[in-house]
Amino acid sequence: MKDTEADSLIETAHALADAARAATLSHFRSGTLGVENKAGTGFDPVTRADRASEAAMRAILADRRPEDGVLGEELDGTSSRSGLTWVLDPIDGTRGFVCGTPTWGVLIALADAGGPILGIIDQPYIGERLLGGFGRAEFSGPHGQRRLATRAPRPLSQASVFSTFPEVGTPEEGRAFAALAGQAQMVRYGMDCYAYALVAMGHVDLVVEAGLHAYDIQAPIAVIEAAGGIVTDWKGGPAHDGGRVVAAANASIHAEALAILSAAD
Amino acid sequence: MKDTEADSLIETAHALADAARAATLSHFRSGTLGVENKAGTGFDPVTRADRASEAAMRAILADRRPEDGVLGEELDGTSSRSGLTWVLDPIDGTRGFVCGTPTWGVLIALADAGGPILGIIDQPYIGERLLGGFGRAEFSGPHGQRRLATRAPRPLSQASVFSTFPEVGTPEEGRAFAALAGQAQMVRYGMDCYAYALVAMGHVDLVVEAGLHAYDIQAPIAVIEAAGGIVTDWKGGPAHDGGRVVAAANASIHAEALAILSAAD
Repeated sequence: MKDTEADSLIETAHALADAARAATLSHFRSGTLGVENKAGTGFDPVTRADRASEAAMRAILADRRPEDGVLGEELDGTSSRSGLTWVLDPIDGTRGFVCGTPTWGVLIALADAGGPILGIIDQPYIGERLLGGFGRAEFSGPHGQRRLATRAPRPLSQASVFSTFPEVGTPEEGRAFAALAGQAQMVRYGMDCYAYALVAMGHVDLVVEAGLHAYDIQAPIAVIEAAGGIVTDWKGGPAHDGGRVVAAANASIHAEALAILSAAD
Repeated sequence: MKDTEADSLIETAHALADAARAATLSHFRSGTLGVENKAGTGFDPVTRADRASEAAMRAILADRRPEDGVLGEELDGTSSRSGLTWVLDPIDGTRGFVCGTPTWGVLIALADAGGPILGIIDQPYIGERLLGGFGRAEFSGPHGQRRLATRAPRPLSQASVFSTFPEVGTPEEGRAFAALAGQAQMVRYGMDCYAYALVAMGHVDLVVEAGLHAYDIQAPIAVIEAAGGIVTDWKGGPAHDGGRVVAAANASIHAEALAILSAAD
C-alpha cells in the first residue's frame, strides 16, 4: 500500500472515531439512552447510542469508501468490493456505558483477507484514543500524546491479568482462566475494551477472554500488535474471528499463558 | 456550624483534593511508581504515589487545621482537639492505579463524633470531583458541572449492582452477595471507589462490599447521602467504621438489599 493511501485510511479511521465520539457522548450519562434488551434470555442491552454511533460511522464510509465492506455489531453487514472491510463496534461495553463507567469504548478496525491492518480504540468520555497500524502506534489523551509500547517481559507471578470472567465463558473456559489467574500477581475485572488499551499502553501484561465476536477483537489486535504485543486464540492461532482470545504484552508472557490456557478443551 | 466555617472547611477539602491530584498524577502511568507489597501474604501494593498524596494533604492540614485530627491509610493518625477529624484515603484502588485504570480515586472526609459530615471523591486522571455535605451535592468533570442526585426507585430485578466481589470478603459474605447479585439486572466488578461515585451521580442502584476500612467509606457516605442515597452496614446500622457496607440510591432498593444481605452471619 502506498503511503498516501495509508494516510488517507488513517484519516478516515479518525473521522469515524470523531463521529462515534459525538454520537455516544450525546447519550452518555443522559436520560435519553432508551435501553433495550436484545437477548432472548438474560440481559444484553443495546441503546440509542450504539445505533447512532454505528450509523454515524457508516454514513462516513458510504461517502468516502463505498467500495469497502462494513461489519458492525448493530446493523447488517455490507460486502467488500475493494478487498478491505471496516469492522466496527459502536460501543464495546454497553453494560458499562449504561452504568456510567468510563471504560467502554468505540472499536474501529480495517481488515484485509489476512485480518486487521489498522485499529482504533477510542474512549470518548475521557478523551483518549489509541491508533495502531501502517507503522504507527499512537496514544492521545487528556494529559498529552505519546507512542504506544507494550510492557517488557516479567514472569506470570509478577504479572497483571485482566478479564471479563467470571461473567463470560463456559465452565471449562472458566477453569482454564482460574488456573492462570491463580498464578498471576494481580487479576482485575470489568474493564471491557479498556483492558486491551492498557496492554497497548504498557501497564498490563495479559487480557484473557472467551466468547468474543470479530468486532470485539479486531481493533485491539491491530493496536496491541503495533505496540509490540501479541494477540492469538488460546492455542496460538489467529484470533480475528473472535472466540477465545489472549492478548499479551510480549512473547514471553504469551508463551506462559498459552502453556496454561491451551489445556482447555 | 456557621456558614462561614462550612465554606472554609469546603475550601480546605478542595485544597486537599487539588494537592492529592497533583501528587498522584505525577506518578500515574509513569515508571516512577516504586510499587511495594505491604501484605504479609498475598499482594497489597503501596506506591510512592500513595505516600506523596497523603503527605501533601497532611501538610495542608498541619498548616490550616492544626487542631483537627487526621486518620489516613498510609501514615500514623493524629488525634483531634477540635472534635473534627479528616479521614483520608490518598489512593483508593491502588491495584487499579498500578494497572493504569482510570477508576481509582482520592477520598477525603471530614467527620465529627457522629460520623462523616463532608466528603470528596476525586478522580484526578479524568478530572472528576464529587463533593457532598453542608447542603451541597456537586459534580464537576471534563464535560461540565451539575448537581448530584441518586437514582429514583426501581426493583432489584431492574437494578445495577457494583462490587469488589469476588475478590474480597469471607465465603459467607460471598454467598450473601451472590444471592443478591443473582436477582439484579446487571452486576459489574472492579471499579474501586468509582462505583460509589456512580451511585451519587444517579447511574447505579447499589454498591455492596465487605472488609472495608473507615477511610474507604467515610467520603462515599457523605457524598451519597448528600445526593439522596443511603449507606449502612448489612444490618442497617452505621457504616462509617467500615466492614460490610451497602450503598443504595434510595430507601426502596436499600430495603430490598438488606432483606437479602442481613441473613449473612
